[in-house]
Amino acid sequence: MTSESEFIAGLRTLATHPAARGLLDDAAVLEIGGANLVLTHDMIVEGVHFLTDDPPGDVAWKLVVVNLSDLAAKGARPLGALIGFTLAGDDAWDRAFTEGLTQALGAFGIALLGGDTVSLPANAPRALGFTAIGTADHAPSRAGARPGHRLWISGSIGDSGAGLRILKGEGEGPAALVERYRQPCPRLELGIALAPIASAMMDVSDGFLIDASRMARASGCGIHVDLGLIPLSSAFLETLGDKREARLFAATAGDDYELLFAAPEDRSAELLALSERLGVPLTPVGRCREGAGLELTDREEAVPLPDRLGFEHIG
Amino acid sequence: MTSESEFIAGLRTLATHPAARGLLDDAAVLEIGGANLVLTHDMIVEGVHFLTDDPPGDVAWKLVVVNLSDLAAKGARPLGALIGFTLAGDDAWDRAFTEGLTQALGAFGIALLGGDTVSLPANAPRALGFTAIGTADHAPSRAGARPGHRLWISGSIGDSGAGLRILKGEGEGPAALVERYRQPCPRLELGIALAPIASAMMDVSDGFLIDASRMARASGCGIHVDLGLIPLSSAFLETLGDKREARLFAATAGDDYELLFAAPEDRSAELLALSERLGVPLTPVGRCREGAGLELTDREEAVPLPDRLGFEHIG
Repeated sequence: MTSESEFIAGLRTLATHPAARGLLDDAAVLEIGGANLVLTHDMIVEGVHFLTDDPPGDVAWKLVVVNLSDLAAKGARPLGALIGFTLAGDDAWDRAFTEGLTQALGAFGIALLGGDTVSLPANAPRALGFTAIGTADHAPSRAGARPGHRLWISGSIGDSGAGLRILKGEGEGPAALVERYRQPCPRLELGIALAPIASAMMDVSDGFLIDASRMARASGCGIHVDLGLIPLSSAFLETLGDKREARLFAATAGDDYELLFAAPEDRSAELLALSERLGVPLTPVGRCREGAGLELTDREEAVPLPDRLGFEHIG
Repeated sequence: MTSESEFIAGLRTLATHPAARGLLDDAAVLEIGGANLVLTHDMIVEGVHFLTDDPPGDVAWKLVVVNLSDLAAKGARPLGALIGFTLAGDDAWDRAFTEGLTQALGAFGIALLGGDTVSLPANAPRALGFTAIGTADHAPSRAGARPGHRLWISGSIGDSGAGLRILKGEGEGPAALVERYRQPCPRLELGIALAPIASAMMDVSDGFLIDASRMARASGCGIHVDLGLIPLSSAFLETLGDKREARLFAATAGDDYELLFAAPEDRSAELLALSERLGVPLTPVGRCREGAGLELTDREEAVPLPDRLGFEHIG
C-alpha cells in the first residue's frame, strides 16, 4: 500500500455520510432542499500536475476543467466555484492566470463565488485548489455497472499524454496533441445527456485503465477491456502508431477528461443516436462481467495488466 | 496596492453572481431549492499560516476551524466538507494530521464529503485547502451596519497572537495562549443565535482592526472603535499588560476567530441576555457612524491608525 493510498484509506473512515459516496466517486452528491448538489474539489501542483513553464492561462484553464470534468461525470450543470490560489510573487504570472480563469469561467458559464488567496514562502511550488458546485437531476455513481453491461468511452484517449510527451521533449507530433494537454474540455453537455442512460459513469483523469478498475471495484463486478477498441485520434496514430505499446501508453497516460460509462446492452442504439446528435464519438470498449478486477485483451489475445494503470489519489 | 490586493481586485470582476457577495463576505451564500447554502474555502500554508513544527493534529484542527469560523459568521449550521491535502512524504505527519482531522470533524459534527490528495515536489511546503458547506435560515452579510448601530465583539481578542509570540520565542506566557493559537474554536452556536439579531456580522481572522475596516467599507459607513473597550483575557493581560501598545498588538494580531457584529441599539438588552445564556462574553467596542473608514480612540483620546491593521487576502 503506498503512503497515499494509506492516507486515503484513513480519510475514507471519516467519510461515512451517504453524500460522500465513500470517497469512491468523482464528486459528492448531497440532497438539499429537493435538489441534488454535486460538489468536487481538485488541486493541481506546479511540477506535478503542470509544468513551471506552462502558460499561466492554460494552468487556470486546466484547474477549472479537471473539476468541471468531475461534474460532467455526474451529469451536473455547473453553478459556481470557489478558488484556492497561492501567490508566488510573480505579478505577470498571476495576471495571465486571472485572464485564463476569466476565459474558462466564461466558456463554461460558471460564477466565481469565493475562495482564498494565500502567499507562499520563497521558491515554493504553486498549489492551486478549485471547488466546483453543480446540480443534477440524477447523478449516476461509479457503482452501478452490472455484469452484461457494455463499457463505453467518449472521444479519444491518449492525446493529452502524447502532448505531454512532446512538451517534455520526448518526441515530436502535431500541435493538436499539446493543445489537448493544455486546454482539455469537460464533457458537460454529454454528461447531462448520458446521466439518465448510464448505469455507472466517471471521467477519465488518472488513466483509462486505473479509472476502469475503479469502476469495477465500486460496482462489485469485473470489467473486460479490449485494448484494440480504445479510440485513438488520427494525431495520436500519426505520432505513436497503433502498436500495443502505443495503446497501453494511451490507456494509462491520463488527463483525457473523457467520460467512461457502462450501460445495458439495450441502450446501445440510443447511445449511438446521441453520439450522432452531439457530434461526440461514443465507442464500446469492453463489457462488465461477474467477478472482480480488470481483464485486458488486444482483440482476441490476452494481455497482462501493466504494473502501472495510471495515477493514484482520491476521486 | 499590493500585488495580492491587485490580484483579488481582478478576481472580483469575475464574481458578478449575487451569491458571491462581491468576494467581500466571509462566505458565499447561494439560494438553492429553497435553502441558503453557505460555502467557504480557506487555505493554510506551512511557514505562513502554521509552523513546520506545529503538531500535525493541531494543523488539521486549525484548517477545519478557519473555515467553520466563516460559516459561524454567517449563522450557518455546518453540513459537510471537502479537503485538499498535499502529501509531503512524511507518513507519520500525515497519520497525525488524519487523527486531528477526525477529532475536529467529530467535535463539530461535520461529514467529510470528498476532496483531493496530491503529491508535492521534494521540500515543498504543505498547502492545505478546505471547503466547508453549511445552511443558514438567514445569513447576515458584512454590509448591513448602519450609522448608530453598536459594534460588538465576542470573547476576547489577542490571545492567539500572544500565543504565536510565545511559540516564536519572543516572550513567555501561560499555556492557555498557545492553546488558543493552536486550537481555536469557531463560534458556531453563537453565530446561529446572533444571525437574526446582527445587522452585519463577520469573523475576526485577519485582525480586529482590518476586519472592522472591511465591515465599514462593505456597509458604506464609518466605524468608531474604542481600543480601551476591546476585551482582553486575564492570560493576555498577565503577559502583555494593558498599555496601548498591547491593545494595538491584540487588535491587529489576527487568528482570533471571534464574531464581530453590528446591531441596532435597541437589541442591546437581548444581546446581553444571549451572552448570559450561552456563557460567551459579548462586549460593545464601538459604534457605526456616517462617513467611511475606521476612527480609533483609547477611551477619550484619539489614536492614529497603525500602518498595518492585519493580514490581507480574500474573505
